[in-house]
Amino acid sequence: MKAVFYHAGCPVCLDAERQILQLVDNDAHEIEIVHLGEQPQRVTSAKALGVKSVPAIVVADNEPVHLNFGASIADLEA
Amino acid sequence: MKAVFYHAGCPVCLDAERQILQLVDNDAHEIEIVHLGEQPQRVTSAKALGVKSVPAIVVADNEPVHLNFGASIADLEA
Repeated sequence: MKAVFYHAGCPVCLDAERQILQLVDNDAHEIEIVHLGEQPQRVTSAKALGVKSVPAIVVADNEPVHLNFGASIADLEA
Repeated sequence: MKAVFYHAGCPVCLDAERQILQLVDNDAHEIEIVHLGEQPQRVTSAKALGVKSVPAIVVADNEPVHLNFGASIADLEA
């Protein structure tokens, strides 16, 4: 299964990433890590997927799961 | 690694549970599912761990990761 983990490098993001990703079966699933601060061209597609804040994880084509609260997606828009 | 997933049976909880748990390596980690509506005696310890809302997952002894927002822990207290 493909999942995309969106973050913005904030401490809340990095903590959530560490905690969730250590549980993941990396042999069975492909997790893409997207740093929206470094890849601002991905912000529009993240929003289109329903990402409202980071950190968030989008599993397959499902609605995003927002993890704690680091930053609003609006604050990451150019 | 041990992780505890707290929920209260709400749709937001069940969706987050499904999405996160399908990524987890169940051979490597032990995930306990706690339904605080059915196990109200666990609310106090969840609060002590820092759980402020459900669904939430507590990995090892770390700070909880709150997933989306289903219900406040305060609303689950007896």
